[in-house]
Amino acid sequence: TVKHIFKEIFKAAKELQEGDYRETLLVSRKKKPSDTIISVGDISVGNGENQFIMGPCSVESQEQVNTVAKAVKQQGVNILRGGAFKPRTSPYDFQGLGEEGLKMLRHAGDQYGLKVVSEITNPKDIELGTKHLDIIQIGARNMQNFDLLKEAGKSNKPILLKRGLAATINEFMNAAEYVVTQGNSNLILCERGIRTYETATRNTLDITAVPILKQETHLPVMVDVTHSTGRRDLLLPAAKAAIAVGADGIMAEVHPDPAVALSDSQQQMDIPTFEHFMEQLKQPHAVVNNG
Amino acid sequence: TVKHIFKEIFKAAKELQEGDYRETLLVSRKKKPSDTIISVGDISVGNGENQFIMGPCSVESQEQVNTVAKAVKQQGVNILRGGAFKPRTSPYDFQGLGEEGLKMLRHAGDQYGLKVVSEITNPKDIELGTKHLDIIQIGARNMQNFDLLKEAGKSNKPILLKRGLAATINEFMNAAEYVVTQGNSNLILCERGIRTYETATRNTLDITAVPILKQETHLPVMVDVTHSTGRRDLLLPAAKAAIAVGADGIMAEVHPDPAVALSDSQQQMDIPTFEHFMEQLKQPHAVVNNG
Amino acid sequence: TVKHIFKEIFKAAKELQEGDYRETLLVSRKKKPSDTIISVGDISVGNGENQFIMGPCSVESQEQVNTVAKAVKQQGVNILRGGAFKPRTSPYDFQGLGEEGLKMLRHAGDQYGLKVVSEITNPKDIELGTKHLDIIQIGARNMQNFDLLKEAGKSNKPILLKRGLAATINEFMNAAEYVVTQGNSNLILCERGIRTYETATRNTLDITAVPILKQETHLPVMVDVTHSTGRRDLLLPAAKAAIAVGADGIMAEVHPDPAVALSDSQQQMDIPTFEHFMEQLKQPHAVVNNG
Amino acid sequence: TVKHIFKEIFKAAKELQEGDYRETLLVSRKKKPSDTIISVGDISVGNGENQFIMGPCSVESQEQVNTVAKAVKQQGVNILRGGAFKPRTSPYDFQGLGEEGLKMLRHAGDQYGLKVVSEITNPKDIELGTKHLDIIQIGARNMQNFDLLKEAGKSNKPILLKRGLAATINEFMNAAEYVVTQGNSNLILCERGIRTYETATRNTLDITAVPILKQETHLPVMVDVTHSTGRRDLLLPAAKAAIAVGADGIMAEVHPDPAVALSDSQQQMDIPTFEHFMEQLKQPHAVVNNG
Repeated sequence: TVKHIFKEIFKAAKELQEGDYRETLLVSRKKKPSDTIISVGDISVGNGENQFIMGPCSVESQEQVNTVAKAVKQQGVNILRGGAFKPRTSPYDFQGLGEEGLKMLRHAGDQYGLKVVSEITNPKDIELGTKHLDIIQIGARNMQNFDLLKEAGKSNKPILLKRGLAATINEFMNAAEYVVTQGNSNLILCERGIRTYETATRNTLDITAVPILKQETHLPVMVDVTHSTGRRDLLLPAAKAAIAVGADGIMAEVHPDPAVALSDSQQQMDIPTFEHFMEQLKQPHAVVNNG
Repeated sequence: TVKHIFKEIFKAAKELQEGDYRETLLVSRKKKPSDTIISVGDISVGNGENQFIMGPCSVESQEQVNTVAKAVKQQGVNILRGGAFKPRTSPYDFQGLGEEGLKMLRHAGDQYGLKVVSEITNPKDIELGTKHLDIIQIGARNMQNFDLLKEAGKSNKPILLKRGLAATINEFMNAAEYVVTQGNSNLILCERGIRTYETATRNTLDITAVPILKQETHLPVMVDVTHSTGRRDLLLPAAKAAIAVGADGIMAEVHPDPAVALSDSQQQMDIPTFEHFMEQLKQPHAVVNNG
Repeated sequence: TVKHIFKEIFKAAKELQEGDYRETLLVSRKKKPSDTIISVGDISVGNGENQFIMGPCSVESQEQVNTVAKAVKQQGVNILRGGAFKPRTSPYDFQGLGEEGLKMLRHAGDQYGLKVVSEITNPKDIELGTKHLDIIQIGARNMQNFDLLKEAGKSNKPILLKRGLAATINEFMNAAEYVVTQGNSNLILCERGIRTYETATRNTLDITAVPILKQETHLPVMVDVTHSTGRRDLLLPAAKAAIAVGADGIMAEVHPDPAVALSDSQQQMDIPTFEHFMEQLKQPHAVVNNG
Repeated sequence: TVKHIFKEIFKAAKELQEGDYRETLLVSRKKKPSDTIISVGDISVGNGENQFIMGPCSVESQEQVNTVAKAVKQQGVNILRGGAFKPRTSPYDFQGLGEEGLKMLRHAGDQYGLKVVSEITNPKDIELGTKHLDIIQIGARNMQNFDLLKEAGKSNKPILLKRGLAATINEFMNAAEYVVTQGNSNLILCERGIRTYETATRNTLDITAVPILKQETHLPVMVDVTHSTGRRDLLLPAAKAAIAVGADGIMAEVHPDPAVALSDSQQQMDIPTFEHFMEQLKQPHAVVNNG
């Protein structure tokens, strides 16, 4: 019937359109079939091994960040995180130490042989990030801060781009494209949970976003288990799921004394908990073949 | 200060209240710390081994369900699924074969040595389910069909209760409680994805619901990877994540010829795909220790 | 270009498909352009005047429902509501008085000259509803209880169908279609808020669902301001918005003493608040022309 | 019982806590009970009369913006909008004319006696906004771009702050607080729809956010009917609902030829549609008393 023919044309046209669209994006696997491996000095992200990015929510003092760096290094982790420019819901919450925080993080990284990553929130501060950091993070609230994305795209540093609080996968890929179109294709994507009606967790970890992004793009994909769950008791199962599903790495928060942390005290691991977390994940039978 | 004291009282009171609440539920692990293991004949669900529930979305004919049953059995699966009473968005979609479908499913199960599960949607049909099935499924759209839950609670059959389309974990636990309060504690919970703004998948698989439900209740928890993703290409990664996170089993749809299926043609696996799916999951390194 | 032509074909095909689909539904305005006016005895719903459905969340006693009926009648309201079969999240919450509650409601309605509406949740109880009620309500949790919808469709009573907790407008229209295909086209739709991430209100009132449903269907559309907001302080503004946007009526809960109500105590109006509510809505400048 | 006493303490403590929190915010009505009226030259926003902000999605040329300005002025509208820095999902979409666009808008505003508003997205461009605009808009994607908010707070221009794509009302109030803490309390809030699962509209207009924000803060609240609905056919009912519910004004998009618009072509009104829209809203019976 005519109706059936129209349906077939419709389906064919739809598939062509979507194919067209995907082919136009530089981040698309249609454009570049092989995996992009990001080199951070002598460390690689996206080469089939899991990388861990661990550290405090906020850099609070040199001592605090050093304590975490030491513990992190002992567990074989290569990358240290710590916030210096903190996007906080309330203006009365701790806003981070700014450049001073970046320097402390750099210092701890140098002392313990760790790469360092921290969030930059203002386009004009990409320069500071380039100076002090090994990886520049663009956070969830800034995933569609297009001026920041463009500025990050002009940098030569690896960029860790987090999915927005309620961003679709399509918007996430397009945000990544903003960075890449400016010339910087050293980009790591990070799933960190999405906003849903469910209140048992801080966000809902969209675990299948990982295989979708791995299929649709050639970029490495990590999972932030801290912000996606917001619950210490779920960090380990979430990390296991992320590894099983094919993530290139795990991001989580560690603090020497979470109870007195200046931010996110409910969801950071203390050092013994972190050590247990790493040991569980390093067990041979915990590693799932993603073939 | 007084303000601080109030905050402490507030926190203490809140924890007590929630504790109180959890302790009142029969499904709560506070009430029964040990895992509930459901016996379905000689099969156990929740004993630490993964169970698979596989089969067509709808029972369409004896031949169709037999073909799937044979393939399913060959892969070592113990439980066969197939819909006979189909809740469909449109009244013009295939509504299932009703009792005839249950009989075909039973027949296929008997022939191939498989337990059988199918959805019942009307309280008065729980009797039919009890007669023809090994496990009675209560579907997502009926998670808060309390009359159906109560009737299922009066049956002595194991019940597979799916999480509602947009149900909170709290509502899900309370729905389970409706069954258990009527005397039937043979209950299996099933996460099947929740409704969010994201359109890349049919629903968003709430993977951390599994460890939450395992902590909060003593009941087995399975994951329906078909309805949570709605995409054939995501069934395998979703199943790996579910096993890694501690699920007691996986549910998925298999059809001899998905393209001509009377329902859900886009998301069912054909038999070779299903065989690949099972082989991937049975590889030793694919099994994650959930300790 | 070929690409452009495909896009045009795609758009045309899409519009045709959707047109096709809408034309197939009996509830569609494409199928019946004129407004359906529902007669409830001598009362009309959908004739351009606002109807109010007011009453307690649950029928608790003859005295309670009589008190409300009297107050409701004095404000010129024509339809009294009161729950007898209560779908409650927890099995330990008040479940309603069942048929006894329907009888009390009927009695109050007869005494004060009001039509009565109450929810039926079990297909087998549609008969009871037909016996005792003027309008049978199908609640949000049962919007896709298709057995109940079909049974309601076999009744000759007007049906008030509420939108599901997280139902799309498309699903809502299809649920309505289930009733109409069985022969009962005396159907009133009711928007009652949808589940979103926002916690300031119990649900999010989807106010533009009203004009969409009025355009897409020929059925009357009411708004339940109590369940959509869950807050007494928002009932009046929500009702004003509903009337402004073209709703055919307003549904809200009134209780003689909300603080001791057996259900929904936080959101019901007491009688003086209800009287203020009605007076505000009856002011001439409060009535918006929906042309 | 002890349990009951705990519940009462809990409730009291919770109310105290929330009261405490609200009292600390400068935007809170607890801190300043009287309505804040924003003066934009000789125009007032928040004084009880409705203000309309109308104009094209993007400034495309001097001629285009002049054509709209003329039509807008003829309908008694006081404020002209037009985007110059456009946040677009894809980097390949039209990104706006930048400062050139601001100058064209200013020119049109001066020629037709209209105040002008446009979005600024980069903290460093707040200076440009201060130079060329009467009101600086901070868009939905930048609601938690805290560097931008702080910079806007240092300006002396009125700020129009839109609610984020999936922001809670609590987050929205805190974002407003970021501006006010820097010294600029000339702030207008704008509800523009939130992201939900529903696809019939581009976003879901959260109509009761208006009375909530009017209660909780002392700031004017407008409603953007274009972005909340994304559908031309819903602009008029949405605007009626917004006025009925107590909004201080309406924002909508008008383009001389929407079909060829460089952005948002599906949702802008052409000039005759806009004239009909304004006439409908200016009818006396369309004005609802918000008392």
